[in-house]
Amino acid sequence: MLNDKVVFKESTIQLSHGAGGKASRKLIEGLVAPYLKVNELNDAAYVQAENAKIAFTSDSFVVSPLKFPGGSIGELAINGTVNDLAMGGAKPLAIVSTLIIEAGLETAILEEEIKAMGEAANKANVSIVGGDTKVVEHQKADQLFITTAGIGLVDPRVNLCAKRVKQGDKVILSGPIGDHGITILLARGELDLEADIKSDTRSVWPFVKKLIDVAAPGLKWMRDPTRGGMATALNELARDAKVSIVLEEEAIKVRPEVRGACEILGLDPLHIANEGQFIAVVSEEYAEEALKAIQEVPGGELATIIGEVQESDRHIVLSRSSYGGTRAIDMLVGDPLPRIC
Amino acid sequence: MLNDKVVFKESTIQLSHGAGGKASRKLIEGLVAPYLKVNELNDAAYVQAENAKIAFTSDSFVVSPLKFPGGSIGELAINGTVNDLAMGGAKPLAIVSTLIIEAGLETAILEEEIKAMGEAANKANVSIVGGDTKVVEHQKADQLFITTAGIGLVDPRVNLCAKRVKQGDKVILSGPIGDHGITILLARGELDLEADIKSDTRSVWPFVKKLIDVAAPGLKWMRDPTRGGMATALNELARDAKVSIVLEEEAIKVRPEVRGACEILGLDPLHIANEGQFIAVVSEEYAEEALKAIQEVPGGELATIIGEVQESDRHIVLSRSSYGGTRAIDMLVGDPLPRIC
Repeated sequence: MLNDKVVFKESTIQLSHGAGGKASRKLIEGLVAPYLKVNELNDAAYVQAENAKIAFTSDSFVVSPLKFPGGSIGELAINGTVNDLAMGGAKPLAIVSTLIIEAGLETAILEEEIKAMGEAANKANVSIVGGDTKVVEHQKADQLFITTAGIGLVDPRVNLCAKRVKQGDKVILSGPIGDHGITILLARGELDLEADIKSDTRSVWPFVKKLIDVAAPGLKWMRDPTRGGMATALNELARDAKVSIVLEEEAIKVRPEVRGACEILGLDPLHIANEGQFIAVVSEEYAEEALKAIQEVPGGELATIIGEVQESDRHIVLSRSSYGGTRAIDMLVGDPLPRIC
Repeated sequence: MLNDKVVFKESTIQLSHGAGGKASRKLIEGLVAPYLKVNELNDAAYVQAENAKIAFTSDSFVVSPLKFPGGSIGELAINGTVNDLAMGGAKPLAIVSTLIIEAGLETAILEEEIKAMGEAANKANVSIVGGDTKVVEHQKADQLFITTAGIGLVDPRVNLCAKRVKQGDKVILSGPIGDHGITILLARGELDLEADIKSDTRSVWPFVKKLIDVAAPGLKWMRDPTRGGMATALNELARDAKVSIVLEEEAIKVRPEVRGACEILGLDPLHIANEGQFIAVVSEEYAEEALKAIQEVPGGELATIIGEVQESDRHIVLSRSSYGGTRAIDMLVGDPLPRIC
């Protein structure tokens, strides 16, 4: 639930307002929600159309650079929207996409991205059914922005709602975190750092489909931790569900290259964006089956249970190290890595 | 139907490729369609979800200036998507919107546009159910770009298809043309021209709803002539339906201020964008009732029958003057008025 008492006091919009963390939430609560009656910050909204429950979502992609190890803006634009639908428990049905192009963009660059969109859509088994193209003057955009919207059919077995999240529920993470954000950062070449990592961009629907098949009654909440990372997603859950989340630090997989880059840059991997991972909160009863289901889908082998839900008056996220110490994990503040998606 | 033999030969993308005319069509046919399997250039695509036939559409808005007499980018973004759904014979159900904001934009400007979106959505009786916000660095965008996507429920009485358009069908236009494009042009203040006109931005769903109620069996094709204007929309119809369209020049209403500006600038009002008008092709049998239905809705008083469909091997648009002469009306070539929506 959004806090409707927030007042947005900044006189101008800054990069941090698009970073997906605290400042973004303030912008939505203080400036968007009062006029548009948005109630929740879910990845996908539900709309009833005759007997079909439709999930409906949209995302703009402004990633810089357009291409990076493991993916590109076109691929991201498809997978990002497919994943938002999946997080709503919906089988992706169709996508519409719009392009905002800076005049002077090389046709070859545009062609590669359109091709990447087509391939990603094929791979995710979703159709791109329409769209729009706008061209703006040179230096009035940055090469190419892509916006995609998607609709999906919500699986009738699914009932996702933060309010169902209770003491003892388990938090499952689909794989290692931070790959996407750090890949983009290194791809910019502004830092004297190199590492053999690539973006994790992919459709997570195959995992979610399996998860629904085996654990739908116990499946309570899902989120793909993109901008703002795991820390922001779980803090939003803690706040919306009025619970605390206790993470086991050792269970959260971070590749050594990502950990190394984060240490050098003073970043927390929990704040770094992912594009092919998701978090699922599942009742204790279904947790082991749910985990196994994800692990059995190719690419899900590294899924783990990373923590659990605790009743608490403090709606926070705690991380417990193997030495027994715990630290509070806050939402992302500021924007250390702008334009990662 | 798109021509799949078109090859896109330009090495860079230019403003004209976003203008909605010939160059846009070439970009779609030569570069987008081959990868994304887009089949038609309709305003909205149809997706079946259980027993619901859903219309699904998306548009990006990059209009400059953001505010102009009669409207603003926020209002345009809602009405544009509502109108695309209406053109698909669909009652608008829900909208998602994404904002791409240039860092440094004044909060007051953003707030006004969010407010305009909310008001336009209220007026059009459609909910904004979600969205996304991205912020890019200063000078990497032009203040604010808005993308909206919409879903609507297709009225089961409707069967819109260019192939149903036949000899003798009547072409109905909902009101005077050119107001929007000329308003934007004058609002830029680059020309030493002033005129008392304002954008025609509005939801056309109330007209379409009435039209469906009284003339659904005879209603064959609809289009809102935005970028590229009436001339482009009707040329696309002529091509898709393999017919000619013969217009009665005198029946097409153009306000004197718009006609005057067009004469000074060497533009044809038929090429100028509209945001609150639409063209409907209706069988002769239903044409009079259809016209009356539109005229009875407030704001539709100036609707007229502007021409008819003729069988022909030349798939062109002709305009007949009151003196008896006819001239061929081509699609828009180039982009005399960039960024009008």
